[in-house]
Amino acid sequence: MAGFSFTVTATQDRARTGVIATPRGQIRTPAFMPVGTAGTVKAMLPESVRATGADILLGNTYHLMLRPGADRIARLGGLHRFMHWDRPILTDSGGFQVMSLSDLRKLTEEGVTFASHIDGSRHVLSPETSMEIQRLLGSDIVMAFDECPALPATEERQAEAMRLSMRWAQRSRDAFGDRPGHALFGIMQGGVIRHLREESAEALRAIGFDGYAIGGLAVGEGQAAMFGVLDYATDLLPADRPRYLMGVGKPDDIVGAVQRGVDMMDCVLPSRSGRTGQAWTRRGPVAVKNARHADDPRPLDESCTCPACTGYSRAYLHHVFRAGEMISGMLLTWHNLHYYQQIMQGMRDAIAAGTLDDWVADFHAVRAQGDIAPL
Amino acid sequence: MAGFSFTVTATQDRARTGVIATPRGQIRTPAFMPVGTAGTVKAMLPESVRATGADILLGNTYHLMLRPGADRIARLGGLHRFMHWDRPILTDSGGFQVMSLSDLRKLTEEGVTFASHIDGSRHVLSPETSMEIQRLLGSDIVMAFDECPALPATEERQAEAMRLSMRWAQRSRDAFGDRPGHALFGIMQGGVIRHLREESAEALRAIGFDGYAIGGLAVGEGQAAMFGVLDYATDLLPADRPRYLMGVGKPDDIVGAVQRGVDMMDCVLPSRSGRTGQAWTRRGPVAVKNARHADDPRPLDESCTCPACTGYSRAYLHHVFRAGEMISGMLLTWHNLHYYQQIMQGMRDAIAAGTLDDWVADFHAVRAQGDIAPL
Repeated sequence: MAGFSFTVTATQDRARTGVIATPRGQIRTPAFMPVGTAGTVKAMLPESVRATGADILLGNTYHLMLRPGADRIARLGGLHRFMHWDRPILTDSGGFQVMSLSDLRKLTEEGVTFASHIDGSRHVLSPETSMEIQRLLGSDIVMAFDECPALPATEERQAEAMRLSMRWAQRSRDAFGDRPGHALFGIMQGGVIRHLREESAEALRAIGFDGYAIGGLAVGEGQAAMFGVLDYATDLLPADRPRYLMGVGKPDDIVGAVQRGVDMMDCVLPSRSGRTGQAWTRRGPVAVKNARHADDPRPLDESCTCPACTGYSRAYLHHVFRAGEMISGMLLTWHNLHYYQQIMQGMRDAIAAGTLDDWVADFHAVRAQGDIAPL
Repeated sequence: MAGFSFTVTATQDRARTGVIATPRGQIRTPAFMPVGTAGTVKAMLPESVRATGADILLGNTYHLMLRPGADRIARLGGLHRFMHWDRPILTDSGGFQVMSLSDLRKLTEEGVTFASHIDGSRHVLSPETSMEIQRLLGSDIVMAFDECPALPATEERQAEAMRLSMRWAQRSRDAFGDRPGHALFGIMQGGVIRHLREESAEALRAIGFDGYAIGGLAVGEGQAAMFGVLDYATDLLPADRPRYLMGVGKPDDIVGAVQRGVDMMDCVLPSRSGRTGQAWTRRGPVAVKNARHADDPRPLDESCTCPACTGYSRAYLHHVFRAGEMISGMLLTWHNLHYYQQIMQGMRDAIAAGTLDDWVADFHAVRAQGDIAPL
């Protein structure tokens, strides 16, 4: 793990704050990673993503291998140069998305053979090809190749998928080799079944990774079930390594996950919501398309310092959404990513100050008030 | 014209450079005005539009009166505050677009009755209502209400439309009244028929305006015919007032118009092209979707200082266009608007230095080389 380190600087109960140091810069934890699926955080320039406070982006191996292709990105100098983002990038393994997006999948012990959803071309993803693709992309944090079964799934199916993922985790570790400055994270599976989670954690610890992800959550089980797993799952993972909860979530999911010892998260929600006219604010979600905003001169959130809130009224945001203007997605995505980073900064500061309980109580109290009333 | 003035600071042959001073800031001429149809220059934040060098934007009365409505914009503090642009705004009169975009038009001496293309609601545009709507928007430069006949049109039809426009110009002048710091521009019509242009110019001069537009060009007559009109038309207008060529154009149209004494222009081309994958560079147009760019690590234009050219390869621009990502339109629009403003700055400097002939010769020589060859 030369050139890559994780330091916990403060804890409060199970919550932690710290810093992941990489050759491409520091990642303050708990960290929220905006998703840049196809080489862009949709509707944002990378300097704007950075301005929201993001230290690291996520890229999707499945999308990038199909278009523009990992070899091409490597020839062009890697994903950082390609997308004009010189800070850390984490890439997923493609395992989750090949099962949810591709056509004509065939799953074997070796890996997954599938047809591209873009042009039907045939590809193989396996622990070895996933490691190679993520190496070509130049990813700073590489994810082991895993299988996340679709829900609902029987305990037998969950166990089978988890054990296959653990064999693939070992193959990922072997294929990754020793790459100074680059980290490999293993992914715990096992659904909401505690003994499977325990078995998975034990297998991953035996292999040894630079960080540990919790996969297979936020796939429809609901917040209570997810928190139920996090109540014990983070403690199954080494305390001196980052813990990454994949694909989470709404603001209150994020807060609850950090309280349960999670250090990193990613989700398309703030950017996807921004393109569909939904803002996330400290008072909860706001649908700018609603007619109640048409004449409202007030900003989305008078305390927010993002460009959408400092420059524009709700009436404007309503108008440009209704008119189908690109600035609607641009401003709301910026706002949402800014708000998410404000949550992370707020929790980092509160954990360091030992005031996380107060911060969380305030977070829920403001949300409970709901959005401001129409004028 | 208190608070609004035009000063010519240098001329070379028929070309002029100077400054239009308004209470909201100076407009350096010759000026290119990006089009912000519905309260946004599509795919751009207003601070980015300003960063390209734009001193003034154009807003479309027709679109804004229908959605979100001029009364609503007035209640919200005017168009400048609404769209977060505090520099000058010119609004068109709605006359051109009501004929090209609306349904169920009825044209009378009084004005135009029409149905909205958005929701079918019925509206009336006349010299008086157009002046009122532009006042409600808070426009700095207001355009007289005119009729621009569709081509092809007989000389009789052209004459009829021009004479109606001149009667409407008088009514616009009367309805506009005296509004210190705000300017009213008349619009010359007459198609490509010289004696009609002369008659129109005489009528406008008799009424008296703060500036004079040349309408009815760039509607399909071709560059040669357009230049043929400009060869005499600018000299028909007062030398001490700005001359505005409406709806022009491609880079070489703009250069030829400035050589013929035009001070202001507007066009959707740079922004529309940006959203459809076409870049304009000093070497001519570049279609980023073409496969020749897929592996090209070079920028669109290595001499350009815009974000698209300083941050991204042609390969990236090709990829994000093919993938349908919003950043494609964002970067190409920024590049195109930047390039257009570079043309304007280049001509302003050259006219001031007395070197416009050399500048124009170089402009055409570089374009004649064509785009760089594929690697």
